[in-house]
Amino acid sequence: MAKINKSALSEKKGVSVSETTNANSIKSYKENRKTEIAPDTLIEGILKKNITALGRAITLIESKNQKHTNQAKTIIQACLPHANKSIRIGITGVPGVGKSTFIEAFGKHLTDLGKRVAVLAIDPSSSITKGSILGDKTRMEQLARNDRAFIRPSASGESLGGVARTTRETIILCEAAGFDVILIETVGVGQSEIAVHSMVDFFLLLKLSGAGDELQGIKRGIIEMADAIAINKADGDNLKSAKLAQTESKRALNLYPEKDSQWQPRVLLCSAINNKGIDAIWQMILEYEKVTTKNGYFEEKRNKQSEYWLIQTIENQLNSRFFQRPDIKAELEKHLKLIRENKTTAFAAAEYLLGLE
Amino acid sequence: MAKINKSALSEKKGVSVSETTNANSIKSYKENRKTEIAPDTLIEGILKKNITALGRAITLIESKNQKHTNQAKTIIQACLPHANKSIRIGITGVPGVGKSTFIEAFGKHLTDLGKRVAVLAIDPSSSITKGSILGDKTRMEQLARNDRAFIRPSASGESLGGVARTTRETIILCEAAGFDVILIETVGVGQSEIAVHSMVDFFLLLKLSGAGDELQGIKRGIIEMADAIAINKADGDNLKSAKLAQTESKRALNLYPEKDSQWQPRVLLCSAINNKGIDAIWQMILEYEKVTTKNGYFEEKRNKQSEYWLIQTIENQLNSRFFQRPDIKAELEKHLKLIRENKTTAFAAAEYLLGLE
Repeated sequence: MAKINKSALSEKKGVSVSETTNANSIKSYKENRKTEIAPDTLIEGILKKNITALGRAITLIESKNQKHTNQAKTIIQACLPHANKSIRIGITGVPGVGKSTFIEAFGKHLTDLGKRVAVLAIDPSSSITKGSILGDKTRMEQLARNDRAFIRPSASGESLGGVARTTRETIILCEAAGFDVILIETVGVGQSEIAVHSMVDFFLLLKLSGAGDELQGIKRGIIEMADAIAINKADGDNLKSAKLAQTESKRALNLYPEKDSQWQPRVLLCSAINNKGIDAIWQMILEYEKVTTKNGYFEEKRNKQSEYWLIQTIENQLNSRFFQRPDIKAELEKHLKLIRENKTTAFAAAEYLLGLE
Repeated sequence: MAKINKSALSEKKGVSVSETTNANSIKSYKENRKTEIAPDTLIEGILKKNITALGRAITLIESKNQKHTNQAKTIIQACLPHANKSIRIGITGVPGVGKSTFIEAFGKHLTDLGKRVAVLAIDPSSSITKGSILGDKTRMEQLARNDRAFIRPSASGESLGGVARTTRETIILCEAAGFDVILIETVGVGQSEIAVHSMVDFFLLLKLSGAGDELQGIKRGIIEMADAIAINKADGDNLKSAKLAQTESKRALNLYPEKDSQWQPRVLLCSAINNKGIDAIWQMILEYEKVTTKNGYFEEKRNKQSEYWLIQTIENQLNSRFFQRPDIKAELEKHLKLIRENKTTAFAAAEYLLGLE
């Protein structure tokens, strides 16, 4: 348990262990930690690039315990002035596209260049024993052993909103701990891409050649969000069809209106397993950073993202506060019945329920 | 001004008249009307299928005057037991696809069958002098003169939420006035389709042959919502390419998962201007009604729609109440600045603002 960055990858171990024992040992371990380290010590550790301190602080962010939440706030507040300095890259793609292999190759490339790389994940469906993302010890094995890398799976058993909050706060801590590049992985289905897109500077979509977007389950909205598409597994017999897919994807991207960033999304080929095309992707991201920093979009986007999260958080809270009230719940059911019986309208019922506030 | 159903179509007249004169005359006309007819008289008129009474009651629904709003509530409440009996059909398609010609032909076909047809529209962008939808006197000229038809343009200068509310309430009045078929037209761009889809039983998408969906500006989400696609202008030299488009659209529709209605969306050809294929579309809608009434989906969908509008209305109100408070507005600005200066996070700011509630 000495290296937190490794333990994040050993989630699956839990599967073979009795769940009760495991839960108990986790509990006692957490109890120990809780009393062990004060927020000030963790802050100091984070700013000294201590990965163990970083991991423990993230655990406080993820905790539902009020004391932990308060400690987490203190830590985030202290880290804020040191944050904001990394480039945040979102990476998405359907299962089977080779996301882990890509992140492993991309991460190694960056650490070889002297960069420090943090890998986070957004996966609301994962749980401590069934971690579907970053939960396999064999995934990203090399990167996990790399001193310049920090890998942290998504908090388990959380709603998308919850995961999004903890991930955004984790980014702040990682940046304060001196990470230059933050990679945020998403599972590539549903709403999580939108959440990731709204917290990264650059959004990369991994694709395979061959099957069309529909068959790969890639929604048009995701293609629309992408700043670049990388067609992975472009090697051997695949190379020809990968080039074809490249041409097709370029054509598809050209149908969309110009982005606010004035950046025309690109389509690149790569073979993560053979380390081919990895540097070209990094160079492109650096170019993106340069272009959008110059035209002001880089900072503007981050500001807009903060505004988005602020409004989103408030709206979610307002709505859930209201609908979770027992009296509202009861009246809502009553009025839904009245609507079905043609005795009131949705708008009249809404007015009545709002009057209870 | 004797026939309200005609006056709705003469909006464009206003353009050539001095705006002041026009506004004044409208005002004095409205003042007259206001004092003229009591809600009870309007209710009686509506239930007697009097179109003038119906039009005046809709004006009360659309009014922002509190007295009118209260009168409208009384009228809606009295009409509710007589509502719910029509079939509500949403019709969408990009400009140029021939929506007015289609509605004219379709409406005439239905009135010839003895049906009474109401045509409403969702177009949040229209205004009294610039009515972009149903605002041209020459549009649907025949239908406008038809005694069994009632045409009412979208309320002007309203937000989508506002138009959606008035349209849903207008549906209730139209049904109480004995209309068998309610056609709801949408402009075919943006969010208004979603609003219409959530208030109709059947959603029909009009398309042209030739250009692909992207080039026609048809979003994939709209195709996904369609219960049927009608390829219009399938006549003369166009017929061959229309048949091709039919095959393509069928293939595209097959890619989507089965609908909850268990209804497999169909693709039909029509030529509204030549009155071809119109009856086939009506027969299909009747079949849809039969199938979904039998499997319970028809009623279930209406109930879900009411629930959707109830929740939507409450959420919108809660959020706008909060964000319109002057103290919240000021604090929001202050905290956005703090976020930009890296002095707080979106989540900490949200918590602070929610604490002011």
